[in-house]
Formats: sequence, C-alpha cells, structure tokens
Amino acid sequence: MHKPRVAIIIGSKSDLDLMREAANVLDEFGVDYDMRVLSAHRSPDAAREYALSAESRGIEVLIAGAGAAAHLAGFLAAHTVLPVVGVPVDSSPLRGLDALLSTVQMPPGVPVAAMAVGKAGARNAGFFAVQILGRGDPGLVAKLKEHRVKMQQEILSIEL
Amino acid sequence: MHKPRVAIIIGSKSDLDLMREAANVLDEFGVDYDMRVLSAHRSPDAAREYALSAESRGIEVLIAGAGAAAHLAGFLAAHTVLPVVGVPVDSSPLRGLDALLSTVQMPPGVPVAAMAVGKAGARNAGFFAVQILGRGDPGLVAKLKEHRVKMQQEILSIEL
Amino acid sequence: MHKPRVAIIIGSKSDLDLMREAANVLDEFGVDYDMRVLSAHRSPDAAREYALSAESRGIEVLIAGAGAAAHLAGFLAAHTVLPVVGVPVDSSPLRGLDALLSTVQMPPGVPVAAMAVGKAGARNAGFFAVQILGRGDPGLVAKLKEHRVKMQQEILSIEL
Amino acid sequence: MHKPRVAIIIGSKSDLDLMREAANVLDEFGVDYDMRVLSAHRSPDAAREYALSAESRGIEVLIAGAGAAAHLAGFLAAHTVLPVVGVPVDSSPLRGLDALLSTVQMPPGVPVAAMAVGKAGARNAGFFAVQILGRGDPGLVAKLKEHRVKMQQEILSIEL
Amino acid sequence: MHKPRVAIIIGSKSDLDLMREAANVLDEFGVDYDMRVLSAHRSPDAAREYALSAESRGIEVLIAGAGAAAHLAGFLAAHTVLPVVGVPVDSSPLRGLDALLSTVQMPPGVPVAAMAVGKAGARNAGFFAVQILGRGDPGLVAKLKEHRVKMQQEILSIEL
Amino acid sequence: MHKPRVAIIIGSKSDLDLMREAANVLDEFGVDYDMRVLSAHRSPDAAREYALSAESRGIEVLIAGAGAAAHLAGFLAAHTVLPVVGVPVDSSPLRGLDALLSTVQMPPGVPVAAMAVGKAGARNAGFFAVQILGRGDPGLVAKLKEHRVKMQQEILSIEL
Amino acid sequence: MHKPRVAIIIGSKSDLDLMREAANVLDEFGVDYDMRVLSAHRSPDAAREYALSAESRGIEVLIAGAGAAAHLAGFLAAHTVLPVVGVPVDSSPLRGLDALLSTVQMPPGVPVAAMAVGKAGARNAGFFAVQILGRGDPGLVAKLKEHRVKMQQEILSIEL
Amino acid sequence: MHKPRVAIIIGSKSDLDLMREAANVLDEFGVDYDMRVLSAHRSPDAAREYALSAESRGIEVLIAGAGAAAHLAGFLAAHTVLPVVGVPVDSSPLRGLDALLSTVQMPPGVPVAAMAVGKAGARNAGFFAVQILGRGDPGLVAKLKEHRVKMQQEILSIEL
Repeated sequence: MHKPRVAIIIGSKSDLDLMREAANVLDEFGVDYDMRVLSAHRSPDAAREYALSAESRGIEVLIAGAGAAAHLAGFLAAHTVLPVVGVPVDSSPLRGLDALLSTVQMPPGVPVAAMAVGKAGARNAGFFAVQILGRGDPGLVAKLKEHRVKMQQEILSIEL
Repeated sequence: MHKPRVAIIIGSKSDLDLMREAANVLDEFGVDYDMRVLSAHRSPDAAREYALSAESRGIEVLIAGAGAAAHLAGFLAAHTVLPVVGVPVDSSPLRGLDALLSTVQMPPGVPVAAMAVGKAGARNAGFFAVQILGRGDPGLVAKLKEHRVKMQQEILSIEL
Repeated sequence: MHKPRVAIIIGSKSDLDLMREAANVLDEFGVDYDMRVLSAHRSPDAAREYALSAESRGIEVLIAGAGAAAHLAGFLAAHTVLPVVGVPVDSSPLRGLDALLSTVQMPPGVPVAAMAVGKAGARNAGFFAVQILGRGDPGLVAKLKEHRVKMQQEILSIEL
Repeated sequence: MHKPRVAIIIGSKSDLDLMREAANVLDEFGVDYDMRVLSAHRSPDAAREYALSAESRGIEVLIAGAGAAAHLAGFLAAHTVLPVVGVPVDSSPLRGLDALLSTVQMPPGVPVAAMAVGKAGARNAGFFAVQILGRGDPGLVAKLKEHRVKMQQEILSIEL
Repeated sequence: MHKPRVAIIIGSKSDLDLMREAANVLDEFGVDYDMRVLSAHRSPDAAREYALSAESRGIEVLIAGAGAAAHLAGFLAAHTVLPVVGVPVDSSPLRGLDALLSTVQMPPGVPVAAMAVGKAGARNAGFFAVQILGRGDPGLVAKLKEHRVKMQQEILSIEL
Repeated sequence: MHKPRVAIIIGSKSDLDLMREAANVLDEFGVDYDMRVLSAHRSPDAAREYALSAESRGIEVLIAGAGAAAHLAGFLAAHTVLPVVGVPVDSSPLRGLDALLSTVQMPPGVPVAAMAVGKAGARNAGFFAVQILGRGDPGLVAKLKEHRVKMQQEILSIEL
Repeated sequence: MHKPRVAIIIGSKSDLDLMREAANVLDEFGVDYDMRVLSAHRSPDAAREYALSAESRGIEVLIAGAGAAAHLAGFLAAHTVLPVVGVPVDSSPLRGLDALLSTVQMPPGVPVAAMAVGKAGARNAGFFAVQILGRGDPGLVAKLKEHRVKMQQEILSIEL
Repeated sequence: MHKPRVAIIIGSKSDLDLMREAANVLDEFGVDYDMRVLSAHRSPDAAREYALSAESRGIEVLIAGAGAAAHLAGFLAAHTVLPVVGVPVDSSPLRGLDALLSTVQMPPGVPVAAMAVGKAGARNAGFFAVQILGRGDPGLVAKLKEHRVKMQQEILSIEL
C-alpha cells in the first residue's frame, strides 16, 4: 500500500459519481489518491485543515469538484501552494456556467487550473494531475504517451 | 465612540471606492461600521478569524464586496451565522456576471444575500444592513421610512 | 398558536413545491410563517396591501419566490422597509437566468436579498430569514450553530 | 393644446436622454404625450395611480423605459389593460441583458411589448405607439407609410 | 362568419402547438383570426405577400412565432405598418435566447413587440393583440378588465 | 473594367467602416465586388430584388454585414441559392451576441455562413469569398496559399 | 463510383448521428463525400494529414462537426485553403454555446463558415457545401432551386 | 545562462503586453522561459513543431495565451503530454467569454488548465507554472510560500 499522491475533494455527495471519473483515470495510471467529501461552505475547517496539511502528508496535486458557487477549488488553493485542479460541476439550474466562472476567475497569486464543465472535466482533472506528476516520474510520461497513441488508434479504427 | 455593528469587508484595494458607497449609506443612517480589506484567497486566515470573532465583537451584519470568482461573501458566511450581504463587483472583463454567480449561487445552509452588480449593489448592501438592524431598532425603521418618502419626493419633483 | 414572523409569498401556484423548501427550513427552526400565493402582476393590489400591512401584523422578514420576469420580491420591497429575500425560480425556458437578474438587479434604496436559483435558493431563503430573526433571538442563533455542526458532521461522516 | 394620447414613463432621471428618443418620434408624428419620471420601486404609489387613471385621462398607450431589474413596464401593465411598451435601458454593468429579461419575460395575462435594448428600442417605442394609435387614425397610418418610403430612399441614396 | 382581425403566422409546423396558445386567447375574447404557417426563409414570397396585403384584408395586428434565428416577426414588420407581435420559440439547443434576441433587437423605424420566450409569450401575444384592438373596441376592454378580475380571484382563492 | 463577382451588402451606413475590411481583402486578391447599403427591414424590396437578380448579374458570393437583430444575411439567403456569408456586427449594447445568434441560427435548407463578430469577421468574409471563388479559379487558390505563407512568415519574424 | 468532392469530418463518434444529417443532404443532391471520425485533439496528425492532402485528393469542401471546445473546423482550416464549414454540436452541459463560439470566432485569414448549433446546422452544412459546389456545377444550382420550390410548397400546403 | 523550463506561447502580437504578465511572474521566481508568438491557425506547423519538441528541449510547462476562438492552448496540448496552461484573452467584442470556453472545454484525454480571463489569468499562468515546477524544486515551493506571506501582509497593511 502506497501513500496517496493526489487528493480528490468533492464538494457534495451528489457530485460523487461524476468525480469518480477523475479517480478512474488515476486508477488507469496507477496513481494512488485520497478521495473524500469536503465542503468549503459546510465544513470549512476540515477543508482548511486538509489543504494546510496536504503537502506534509505527501499529496502533490489536489483535484476539487463542485457545482453552483463552486468555491471549493479556490478555497483549497488559498491554503496550499500545491497545484489545485478545479472541476466545475453542472448541478445547478444554470448548467455549470456558474460553477465554471466561480472556479476559473481566480485573482492573481492564487491560481486554480480549471477543467471543462462536467464529466469531460472530471476525467481531464485526472489526466492533468498525471501530467503534473509526470514532471518527476518518467514512467507516467511514458504511460501518457501510450494513452495518446491508444486514443488515436481508437479514433482511426472507427468504421462508418 | 461606539462599537461597530456592521462590517464591510472588501476583497481588493481596487474595489475600495465602489464599496465606500455601502459605508456612505451607513453614515447617512448613523450606523457604526468597521471597514477593511480582507481576501478569501490572499489572506484567508485573517478573513476566517474576522468572521469567527465578528459576533463576539458585536458585529451584527457583514457586507462583503468582491469581483471575478467572488468567494469572499461565501467564505465569511461559512464561518459565521450572522447575516452576510454580498456585493458582486464588475472588475473583470466579464463585467460582473462572474462575481454575481460566484456570490449568489450558495449551497443550502450557508446563504449569502446577493445585491446588484456594482455601485447600485454597494449602496443597497448598506440599506439592507440597516433593514436587518431595524428589526431590533425602531429608530432605524423610522429613518428608513423617511428615506423612502424622500426618494419618492425627489422623483416626483423632477420637472422635464 | 403564534403570530407568524415570516411571510413566504409565492408568485405562481406552480412554484409552490419549490418554495415549500423555505417553509421546511422555518419549520425545522420552529419559526412561524404565513405562506400564500400573490402575484405582482396578476394580483398587484393584494400583494401591495400585504406588503404595506406586513410590519403591523408582526411580520419581520418577507420571502418571495417567482420565475421569469420575477418582479415579486422587488414589488414587495417597494412597499415595505422590512427585509425582503428573493428566490429566483427556474420555471421559464431560460432556466432562471431571467428570474435571477430580475430579482437581484434592484436600484439603490430598495434592496432585495437574492438567493440562489431554484431549490438551493428556496432553502437558503429560510436559513437567511432565521439569521435575520436571530439578531433579536439568541435561541435561533444557537440553533443555527447546531445546524452548522450537524452539516459538518454529515459531510465528514460520508464514507466513500 | 391637446390631451396626451401616449404616456412616456421613465424609471430614473439618468435614463431621460435615452427616452427622449421615444418623445422625438412622437413629435415627428404629431402625437401628444405626457412624459415623466416615475419609479416602480422608489415611487410605487405614484406609478400605480398613474397607471390606474391613465385610461380615464385619455392615455391610449404607455411607454416605460428602465434599466437593471427593469420592473417599470410590468408594474404599469399590472395596473392597466392599456398596451404597455417596454424599453430595456443598458445602464447597469450587465449592459441591458438584465433590463431586457426583466422587461420581456412577463407571465400570461399581463403582457409587455418589449423593444430593443437602448436607443434603438427607445425610438421604436415611439414608432410602435404610433402603429397602435394608427388602428383608429388613418392619418397616422399614412404618415407611417411615408416614413417607410423615406427610410428606404435614404438607404438607397447612400453613395459609397 | 367574420373577417379575421388578427393574423397568427407560425414559422414552422413544429411550433404549431405552442402558438395555438395565442389562438386560444383570441378565442376566449371572441376575436377572429387567420392562422397559418409561413416562413421568412423557406417561403419568403408568400410571407411578403401576406404582410403586404394584410391591412387591405382587414387584419389589424400580426402575431409571429418562430425559433432560432427568428426573423419572421421582423420580416413581416418590414412589409407592413400594422403592429407586429413576436413570440420567441425555444426550439433550438440554445433554448430561445437566440429567438429572443433575433426578435427583439429590431432597428429604429421597424419595431416588433417581443413577448416572453415560449408558452407564456404565445399566450401574451394573444392578450396584447386584444389590448391593441381594444383601442377601438370598448367591449374588448371590458372583457380584458373582467379577465384581470378573474385572474386575481383565482390567485386569491388558492388555499395552501 | 470587370463585372463584380462578389456583393458586399451592408445593413446600415454606420457599419460601413467595419465592412470595408471585407472589401480590402477582395482588393488584395484582385476580386471585383459591388458594395452597397441595403436593409432587410428598411429597404426590403430593394434587398429582395438585389438577391433575386444577383446570380443573373454574375454575382457568385454575397457578403452581408449587420448588427442587432441581424436578419440581412438570412434575408438574402432566402432569395438566392448563391452562398451567403454573414458578418455579425457588434453595434448594439449587447456587443454582437445578438447579431451572431441572429446570423448563424438559420433553419435547415437556407444556410448562412457566419463569420466572427466584428472586424475579424469582416476580413474573414472576404477571405471566405475568395476560397469559394477559388473552386473555379486556380489563380485565387495560388494567391491564398501565398497569403498563408506570408501570414506564417510575419508571425515567425516577430522578435520579442 | 466517383471521387468524393466533400469531406465530412466528425470530432467524436458520439456526434456521428447528428452529422449524418449533413451526409443525408449530400445524398439527396447526389454529391459524393468521404465521412470519417478525426479529432483535432486526439488524432491531430491524422487530421492534419487529411486537411493537407484534401485538395490533391479532389476534395472541394470540408465539413467539420464538433462539440465543446470545438477546434476541429478551425484546425482543418489552418491546414488547407479549401472552404471549411463548421457545425457546432450541442454535446456539452453548456448546450453548444461553447461549440458555437469555438467554431465561429476565427482570426483574420483563416475563416470557418459556422452553421447553426445542432441538427439544423448539420443539415445546412450539407446545403452550404452544395451551394459552394454549385459555383462550378449548374446542375446542382438547378437542384437547389427545385429544393427551394419544394420547401415553399410544403409550407404552403400545411392545413391547420 | 540557463535552459528555459517554461514556454510562453502567444497567439497574436496584440496579446503580447497582456501575456508579459506571465513572464513577469516567472522573472520574480527566477524561472527561465522561452517566449514567442505562434498561432494555431496562422502558423500551425511551427506551433506543432514547437510542441512536439518542447519536452526534448527541456521545457516542462507550456503557457498559451489567445483570444476569440482560442485554440492555441488546446492545439499545443494535442501535441505534447507536458502540462499546458491556457490564458483566455479578452480581445474580441465578446470580451473573453469566447476565449474562455474555447480554452477550457477540452475533451477527455487532452486537458488544458484554464486560468482567468485577461490580466489576472496571465499572472496566474506564471504562478501555476511555478507551482508545477515546485513539485521537483523545493526552492520554488519556499518562494511560493514567501509570496503568500507577502500577499497577506500587503492586504493586512492597507489602512482605510
């Protein structure tokens, strides 16, 4: 058993299924992660503690998924200098435009790396975390390149 | 000298002129306030401490003004059960739609009272704080009613 | 039997189920309320009379929920200096963006406290009314703090 | 001196210049009008009285121009069965999208005829009022046709 | 059998059910109408002929309902000085925002009276046509006032 | 002197400067064009005649630039089977979103080729017309390829 | 068997059903086409090769359909001077507004002809390709005119 | 002299001033970078070559800034598995909403880390690149923490 290198923080239990897509990608790449539900608004102290201690626990990248006024990624980013990847979830009647703007429009000095709204973004949060980890892990880079080849092959093999 | 009953928290020094409109209204109603710059992202611990201790220091209403991914009002609301009034500031290229959605789309249990984008909202944050304080202060209610009469008179006295 | 302290005004019978969320929250906090359907456009005189007399009948906060060109909260706010909380309902094809902008963009001097679009906003209108009433009712403040603790516990107890 | 047939109601003194465009068109067609500033939020009783008595004073069409949460046209329409024409004014940071949605998204039974945002809409409110009055006034219809011919000639005479 | 006073023009057969709401209102008020499908883009000559000859055939108001790049109301308005009422239909993936902007943003001199997006707008097109016809028909005005009373009674009779 | 192969139709004199960008591109490629102001709403018969006769006069591509409820390109497309290229002009307070949706959201069978909003779109209307003409004119294709090479060289020669 | 004159490139297998609408139109007009799935992001080299060689293989028009950050049409346009027609697909939670803006807002020199979002746009991509090919093929122009007549007849034959 | 670890790619010379903000941040942290103008649409081969060879030249993070249909970041991401950070530039009439959606809405497998629109995003692209590099460079992490302290001090030292 290994120490998790990535944290996947989910703002609400209802966003769990969508955010499992990020976990699935990390599983495909053999990256250990810690996944839990923490809310910037309903459990701020726990979220703060998690972010403050993440680096010392060996976490290298944080992924945060939230909907509506999606402050979670920005909240975590305010409490750590680790890279934070934000996934806007389309759970409100405004279909994720609110979550996207709340996630991406961060002020200078405290960036969040916003992914696409919804499922595509959840998967890409996983891929992007692997790309970051790949900076110090040539094995992951090799796997990323294999995955690119596989994606291309899948597309080129489609027969209409 | 009196203890402040309202806190006006401003997310960035550049939003100061706009948020002074809230202070101007409180001045007109003789309500003492504490105004300062605190950022949910750049000074989260100070903002947290401020919100956690606001009630014990006699603060009864918090006003927060911020632009872009405007998390400030929600951040404060997560750390106090005092009413929090949010002013979306139109300081980003998206002209305040980002700040509005980031301020208003709060999850159940942690409300923020969103005002209009920009100057109108800053002034109304002041008025709304007075309306809240008016629940325990008949003098403020009387002043609010006088102000309504005065507004109406101003409008009806316009000659075209 | 107690006199209601909060009024929940609903712009259309079709918004009733959604707005019951506000009533549910008030029930949880033991706050009496008066709930009825009144339209700013289809029954303006009744809505006006209601707002004008609300204060003398002991109402301390008004909650208004409406969709589309959601004028109801602003209409009530124009006829009372009591705090008015507005819930934008996502009942039109534009999914609540129309109701949000119609509710929140009030002119200086006549504020409406806008909540989130839809169900989250309806629940938060209840919470925000309790926060306002809490200014003169320490028992409600205590209950609000208990609710915060409970929310946090629920989140932290989620096992993935 | 004639009795005015059209009322031009302006929600704020700051919208006066823009709304004069409606008056200019009525002047071009020789239609008498009554123009004044009345606010649905800051002088609701005066606005209500105006709308309730408009028909008996000989008004046949009401034009209302307002910005932000532009409730004015809908407010007037709620108090009269005369046709109400609404002009969304682009005076807020959201550039008139708020005023447009607040004006046009009226519920069944209480229509408002929305014009374009800003100056084009103010002028067209004048033209549309003339078109309505033309239903009982063949002289106005003749003038409208002349104006169409003139517009076409102006366009066709442009030399590049 | 009477000559129709109102024309209801529908841009596409798929919008027929929605636009019948306008016809239903006219039926309630005993106003005769001519309803047909004509497209500004797919049958422009027939739509042009219809608009050019509408006045001489006794038509007093045109209602046009269309989705997407909803040019129909503006197209008709370009060919007649009769009042044209436009209903934006939410038939495209953009949910009617496209139809609303295409209908309402008309240039000076050629107004279209835009109603709400979708079913509410279709019904209101009927009401607004009756309001226009009411300028020369006191019986219709009396019916409109009766309808207002009835709407109010329906709302006030709702028991929660 | 040559017969024009492209028509540049401008909806309003105020859009002339912007639409000259399309003409400038055609000049660069040596393509003759006919440029004039014609409005779908203010001079519909002239616009219709122009579109109906364009093919017989040797026109091969129509470019139309208009703002607000930008029906011009669609109007022309309804009267010809020649390719019509539409340029949404950002002349209204809504900054061209209205013109874009009015131009691009055409119904099946009557396409308009929408370009970008504003100046970029005006220039690209010229380029796209040349690309269409290039289908039967290898000289134009060669020039287009030269232009691509030149664009790339310009970019690669920028020294920072 | 003939050489294809049109290429239909689809960014994702999930967009295949929608993009078959473009192929159906080409079938109706007897235009041969080559349809395949190629992604600007997941198979960029294959997409590049396709675009670079399209002209020499006899392709005269490229149609590209993609959703979300719909770069496909622009990617192809960057690698060929053949006309490229883009179809924004409404496959993301943002319902195609993302795909529309990503497709249409191309920089000067590299145009994409954007069609409507979704099915209407897919069909119109087929029609527009035929209109382009018609510049050198009078038979196609005759068929386009027949189709226009047929569309008009279908509309005029609708009985309500 | 050191080998650059970060590439800053700018889609257009007109975006240079804004994107220098990213370079300024890297300068503050002592990170070497290579900055140049390369367009996904106007110099695709050069951009492709740059992305394909970036890893072997020692580049660890790519920053791309572009406006309108901002494909640049996604284009680079399609040709490398290095992390790509995208800055949406507000250079078109649509004020950066187009660039934001074009940058962030990437398909699964090819992520782009989107920053805020405009200047805030350009600066944050620099900070986020440093955060990524910090994964293998404790000195950068220490500097990031110092910067956080400094930001907080600056905010707390503001006197009103």
